[in-house]
Amino acid sequence: MSRAFIVGRFQPFHLGHLEVIQEILKDHESVIIGIGSAQYSHTLQNPFTAGERHLMISNTLESRKIFNFYIIPIEDVNSNPLWVAHVESLTPHFSSVYTNNPLVKRLFYEKKYNVKSMELINRVEWSGTRIRDRMIRGENWERDVPETVSEIIREIDGVERLRALSESDDL
Amino acid sequence: MSRAFIVGRFQPFHLGHLEVIQEILKDHESVIIGIGSAQYSHTLQNPFTAGERHLMISNTLESRKIFNFYIIPIEDVNSNPLWVAHVESLTPHFSSVYTNNPLVKRLFYEKKYNVKSMELINRVEWSGTRIRDRMIRGENWERDVPETVSEIIREIDGVERLRALSESDDL
Amino acid sequence: MSRAFIVGRFQPFHLGHLEVIQEILKDHESVIIGIGSAQYSHTLQNPFTAGERHLMISNTLESRKIFNFYIIPIEDVNSNPLWVAHVESLTPHFSSVYTNNPLVKRLFYEKKYNVKSMELINRVEWSGTRIRDRMIRGENWERDVPETVSEIIREIDGVERLRALSESDDL
Amino acid sequence: MSRAFIVGRFQPFHLGHLEVIQEILKDHESVIIGIGSAQYSHTLQNPFTAGERHLMISNTLESRKIFNFYIIPIEDVNSNPLWVAHVESLTPHFSSVYTNNPLVKRLFYEKKYNVKSMELINRVEWSGTRIRDRMIRGENWERDVPETVSEIIREIDGVERLRALSESDDL
Amino acid sequence: MSRAFIVGRFQPFHLGHLEVIQEILKDHESVIIGIGSAQYSHTLQNPFTAGERHLMISNTLESRKIFNFYIIPIEDVNSNPLWVAHVESLTPHFSSVYTNNPLVKRLFYEKKYNVKSMELINRVEWSGTRIRDRMIRGENWERDVPETVSEIIREIDGVERLRALSESDDL
Amino acid sequence: MSRAFIVGRFQPFHLGHLEVIQEILKDHESVIIGIGSAQYSHTLQNPFTAGERHLMISNTLESRKIFNFYIIPIEDVNSNPLWVAHVESLTPHFSSVYTNNPLVKRLFYEKKYNVKSMELINRVEWSGTRIRDRMIRGENWERDVPETVSEIIREIDGVERLRALSESDDL
Repeated sequence: MSRAFIVGRFQPFHLGHLEVIQEILKDHESVIIGIGSAQYSHTLQNPFTAGERHLMISNTLESRKIFNFYIIPIEDVNSNPLWVAHVESLTPHFSSVYTNNPLVKRLFYEKKYNVKSMELINRVEWSGTRIRDRMIRGENWERDVPETVSEIIREIDGVERLRALSESDDL
Repeated sequence: MSRAFIVGRFQPFHLGHLEVIQEILKDHESVIIGIGSAQYSHTLQNPFTAGERHLMISNTLESRKIFNFYIIPIEDVNSNPLWVAHVESLTPHFSSVYTNNPLVKRLFYEKKYNVKSMELINRVEWSGTRIRDRMIRGENWERDVPETVSEIIREIDGVERLRALSESDDL
Repeated sequence: MSRAFIVGRFQPFHLGHLEVIQEILKDHESVIIGIGSAQYSHTLQNPFTAGERHLMISNTLESRKIFNFYIIPIEDVNSNPLWVAHVESLTPHFSSVYTNNPLVKRLFYEKKYNVKSMELINRVEWSGTRIRDRMIRGENWERDVPETVSEIIREIDGVERLRALSESDDL
Repeated sequence: MSRAFIVGRFQPFHLGHLEVIQEILKDHESVIIGIGSAQYSHTLQNPFTAGERHLMISNTLESRKIFNFYIIPIEDVNSNPLWVAHVESLTPHFSSVYTNNPLVKRLFYEKKYNVKSMELINRVEWSGTRIRDRMIRGENWERDVPETVSEIIREIDGVERLRALSESDDL
Repeated sequence: MSRAFIVGRFQPFHLGHLEVIQEILKDHESVIIGIGSAQYSHTLQNPFTAGERHLMISNTLESRKIFNFYIIPIEDVNSNPLWVAHVESLTPHFSSVYTNNPLVKRLFYEKKYNVKSMELINRVEWSGTRIRDRMIRGENWERDVPETVSEIIREIDGVERLRALSESDDL
Repeated sequence: MSRAFIVGRFQPFHLGHLEVIQEILKDHESVIIGIGSAQYSHTLQNPFTAGERHLMISNTLESRKIFNFYIIPIEDVNSNPLWVAHVESLTPHFSSVYTNNPLVKRLFYEKKYNVKSMELINRVEWSGTRIRDRMIRGENWERDVPETVSEIIREIDGVERLRALSESDDL
């Protein structure tokens, strides 16, 4: 059985991620979606918890009748040479890895995995950094994420969280 | 939406666990299955990795046409008062907790969760400890687990792993 | 200025601890009370959180008009050779160490500290282990702790917590 | 009983901190002072150990006849969603939180705490960053801290420590 | 170049260990000696620090004109599936693993390493557990270790340390 | 016996390091070489694993007939006040410390060690940062490292690793 692995931080899950997963599922029976840096949240880089990101992904895929995926939170291990073994211990076996992150790419490559890059259409728009910046500046960010994701971010008051965190202080 | 949470170590996933999950799904739309002590494996108490346990559970449920579940590995945090917050950060929200473990029960109870016990039919047989003992002693353990689980344990050479670990040494 | 250091787990704080602290304060201007294994709670050995133990100690001492103490939670560092440096980094300087724990005694002794043993009157009764056992078995444990401590344990439902944790399970 | 909680890094404890604590004690019976990032020291951002910071605060308050405070070192837990539970486990209960730090503010706010901001008079001067910069550049920093704090920093050779750390090297 | 790897806790390094290393060096150009559980010391199971154990091994081998060895302290990683990757990241490459420890054997075996058992002559005497017991009971333990090791244990007051740790207490 | 301690990250080991070690060995019987930040690798700052760095150092020294050294990987402990105790627990005793790193210098100085600076000839060229930059830009980096080091970097495909890691991405 052919299973693929994709890992990202999904801060937040956006249309580029969705497209990539749909592409992967054309070639594989199922996909394991690793939520990287799972222990982090409430920072400007990582505003959402792993549980919130899980919900963004699962609600989106299920709303599109996609069910052949597993979502696995993956906490950082603070030591790159242990990271692939860490992933292997947490997930069912997989044959291919999809990522554009150079570190992830290299770590799996050195462990002899079949690593594939993804061509993201509309790369500029579909960037987590850009979406978070728009949230902070009060610009339109919703067009770059699935509707299911906007809903969750609204429910958890996510934009307000990000803005609150972006204030600075030095008591 | 009514989601339930069940947590166990699933070393291995057995017929008792399966029955409990089926019972839970009579009352809830979906179930989050937390794989506890996720970082441990290759010990007598915890022979299987989180990934292997994931496969045992997902293969079993899917072979029975059950799809409304999420499996989430949960690493120990080494500090009980942080554990519920740790679970909350990793999972989508849930309304009820199912467990027979006294510590888990107490920790969620003190955080005002609705905690439910489970009556396990055939309790004596369906015990992880007992199944692991049988594996080591070469007795019939397969009757207490779903066939999908026996298959995985065979593939990963699980009984041999457990027996190898049960040898002792003091160099 | 002469400051003393005493460390214990205080599970719970009992009359023996109180007596020792009163003795120490006859020879020193102030005492630093280290709450050891601060990160643990909700186990049979360590039922109470560091915050609960803090309250037991501070309420008791203040009710007796003792104010020249500091209470400092000290988390285990999982490596004995680092422990004294860990304590030193968390506390104001001190000149003497009071403990009956052989490991603590040895670690400070090897770092050239002046370590003193304490003669506990009524040693048998005033034992954390014994008090916790009595709580579980429904026997009279209140006579071995200050009234301020019984009150806190009642407020946090501590006996019930300990009993709940003492049940066993093997799902 | 009304207890308040204030948390800061206190690198070092300065006149702004003192003023805020005095304000808090007008409305509360006692204050819990959390020393954040307790495990860090000997960096440009965090030059002083938790024990040194403890001494700065306790000496200052006691010299002003303030005794209704507890000082609690709080180590970072490296996962924001666990931080409030971590604080709760280490401290006696409190009803209000005082902070100007956006992250702390948000974390307590999402856990339904009553979070209050503090107006700092003379904000520009009373900044830890600014005081540390002055130490390094050999400018007058003593006017911004209580005399009890200057004394401790002199005793531990604090300015020299900071200057030594500010040198750079790349062997 | 053919390098072998042997790992043990060496609490303390004894004649059995020495013999095994000499055997290994008949078949290999050099040997990497991993000091397991390197962060532990000052317990009944692990009385000596990694540095003390390093000295026991290096002094012994050098006194016998053996120089083709590397000693590498290896801290536990608290997750067995990461352990082999952890070892690989800390050591030069090696082709064979020598161990009698069932867990180590299994972990390397599952990663396709060539794992070899060692026949220890005089197994009963040459046991760390037995040597530590003899130290505590005041019996002759020196006959089971190289003279270089007795010397180091004398210098660091090792027997007294072990005896002090073997006292028990329950304040 | 006079043993010296030198610590560095050795990313990679270069001619400046070699020269310093040769200088140290003029005044000391042996040298302990601590590989700092041992757990890190596969980053732009720390491309090589501790094992790879071990090999760079041992191959180089042995090829020059230097044998009186020990190489000890030292993982960061994430708390500066514990760092010296951490080093002491991992290494045989030493009398002098050689370093140009201001933090290391200060930490040992405050623990009363004899700390010595090193004059590096040709400082500009012999910088880890500069060598890694040259690797990335495809410039000549080999002239600044011993031949034994170039060989190892070639074998492990080190330049390609560094270049791969220097690409950026923001999926």
